[in-house]
Amino acid sequence: MSFDFKTYLIQRQQQVEEALNHYLPAPTGAFAKIHEAMRYSVFAGGKRLRPLLCLASFEIFKDRLQEVLPTACAIELVHTYSLIHDDLPCMDNDDFRRGKPTNHKVFGEAMAVLAGDALLTLAFELITRAPILKPAMVVTAIRELAQVSGTTGLIGGQVQDLEAEGKTILPEQLQAIHLYKTAALLSGAVRLGGILGEANAKELKSLSHFGEKLGLSFQIIDDVLDVESTTEIMGKQTQKDFMKEKATYPALYGVERSRQMAKELYEEALVELKRFGRRVQALQALASLMINRQH
Amino acid sequence: MSFDFKTYLIQRQQQVEEALNHYLPAPTGAFAKIHEAMRYSVFAGGKRLRPLLCLASFEIFKDRLQEVLPTACAIELVHTYSLIHDDLPCMDNDDFRRGKPTNHKVFGEAMAVLAGDALLTLAFELITRAPILKPAMVVTAIRELAQVSGTTGLIGGQVQDLEAEGKTILPEQLQAIHLYKTAALLSGAVRLGGILGEANAKELKSLSHFGEKLGLSFQIIDDVLDVESTTEIMGKQTQKDFMKEKATYPALYGVERSRQMAKELYEEALVELKRFGRRVQALQALASLMINRQH
Repeated sequence: MSFDFKTYLIQRQQQVEEALNHYLPAPTGAFAKIHEAMRYSVFAGGKRLRPLLCLASFEIFKDRLQEVLPTACAIELVHTYSLIHDDLPCMDNDDFRRGKPTNHKVFGEAMAVLAGDALLTLAFELITRAPILKPAMVVTAIRELAQVSGTTGLIGGQVQDLEAEGKTILPEQLQAIHLYKTAALLSGAVRLGGILGEANAKELKSLSHFGEKLGLSFQIIDDVLDVESTTEIMGKQTQKDFMKEKATYPALYGVERSRQMAKELYEEALVELKRFGRRVQALQALASLMINRQH
Repeated sequence: MSFDFKTYLIQRQQQVEEALNHYLPAPTGAFAKIHEAMRYSVFAGGKRLRPLLCLASFEIFKDRLQEVLPTACAIELVHTYSLIHDDLPCMDNDDFRRGKPTNHKVFGEAMAVLAGDALLTLAFELITRAPILKPAMVVTAIRELAQVSGTTGLIGGQVQDLEAEGKTILPEQLQAIHLYKTAALLSGAVRLGGILGEANAKELKSLSHFGEKLGLSFQIIDDVLDVESTTEIMGKQTQKDFMKEKATYPALYGVERSRQMAKELYEEALVELKRFGRRVQALQALASLMINRQH
C-alpha cells in the first residue's frame, strides 16, 4: 500500500497545533497580555515546517511521538520569536506577516520584544518537559537547539544579513547568510529528530547534510517567490528584498538560474536519505512540499 | 579564625570574570560584531551579584566550584540580556547604564536586540556545558532558570511594570512587580546554587524565602537610591522613575518608610539562613553588601 502523505500531514499538523496550544500559557490572569501576544504570533498561520521535519526525522527511527513533540514545538517557538524580532521597526520593519499585522503593530514594540524573549525562554523550558526522555538526551537536545539558534546559527545569519544590506556581496557570502539564517534551524529540526530517535553518527551526518541542502534550497525558493509572487499570495509585502537592496539569489544569479540551483540542491538532499529505505517517505514528501510550494 | 569576606569576594569575582571571558565567544571572525556587542554589556562593570549569590549558596553544601560556575555565569547572561532589552528606545529608552552608553547607543538598535537574544540563548547552552554535573541536574537547572526568566518571572515583571506606567497602582501590585522583575532572578540564583549543591527540600525552601526577601529588599533600596543619589554616583540617569511616573516604594511610602521596609525584609531574610550554621557566612556577607550599598 502506498504512503498516504495527505492524511499523514493533516494528522501531524493537528498534533503540533494541539501540543503548541497545550504548551503555551493561557491568555488569562496577571500575564494575560504577554501570553496573548505570544499566542498571536504562534497561531498566525505558520505551516509548521520545522516541527513537521523534526517529527518526520524522528519517525525514521521511532514512533512514540510524545518523546519528540516538546522539542518539535520548541523549534517552532524559536522560529516564531525570530520572526517577531526580525519584523521590528529597528530590524526589517515589516507591517504584515502571513497576511496579518505583525506582532508589534498589534501589541506595540515593547510587548513584541518581550513576547519574543518569552518564546525563546519557553522553548528551552519545553524541552525539559519531555517526561519520557533520558536526561542526557534532553541535555543534548537543548545544546543542539541553542547552537543552531545562537550566533553561529540563526542569530549569526541575521547579523550577517543586516551587515550586508546595501552592499555588494560575494556568492559565498550570500550562501553563508542563507545557511545560517534559514538552513541552520531547518537542519537543526531534522537533526533533533534524529538525536531523539537515537540515530547513530553516520545516520546523523546524512540527516545533517539533508537538512542543510534542503534548507538552502528552501531559502532560494523563498527569494525567488519574493520576486515573482504578489503581496496577496504571499501574505506579506513582496519585492521588499529588492527595495531594501538585500542580497538574494535572484539578484545575484537571476530567477531561472536560482530555480535551477534550488532544484539541484533539493536533489542532492534527497540522495542523503537513500540509506534509510522506506521509513523515510514522510520526510521525503515534506521536502518535496517545501520546494514545490507557490507561497 | 574569622571569615575574610573581602578576600573571598575578590577571589570569587575574579573567578566569575574569568569564566565569563572563557564562555563568551571571541570578538573575531565572521561574527565579530555581535560577539563584541555581547561582550560590551557583559563586561560593562556589573557587580556580578547574581553569580556571586549562586556560588555562595552552592558553597553551603559543596566546594567544587567548576560544577556551578557555568550556571552562575548563565544567570549573569540572562541578567545582562534583560538590561540590554530594557534599555531599548521602545522600552525604558535609557542612554546610560553603569556610566557607559547603553548597548544600542554603541551598536545600534538592531544589534542590541540580537545581542540580547544571543546572550539569552547562550545562557541555556552554558548550563549544558557543566561537564561534571549529572544530566538530571542540568535539566532541573535549565528548567529553573527558564521559569525565573520567563513570563512568570523576569519577563512577567517587565510586562507588569510597562503596564503600570502612569497609572495609580496598589501596594500589592507594586510588590508583585518587584518580586517578578528583580526578586525572581536573584532568588533563582540562590536556589540554583542550592539545587546544584543538592540541598534537600527544606533547605531549598529556606533558600527560596531568603532569596525572595533579599531580592525585594534589594529592589526597594534601588528605588530609594534612584530618588536620593545622583547620576554621577549611580552611573545612570537617576530620578527617571519619578519622571516616567513609574511605581516605586518611595513614591508610595516615602523614603524613610521604604528604607525601614527594606531593613525589615533583610532581617527576615537572614533568619532563613539560621539552619545552615557557619557555612553560610559568605551568603550572609553578600546580602549585607547588597542592602547597605550606596550605589
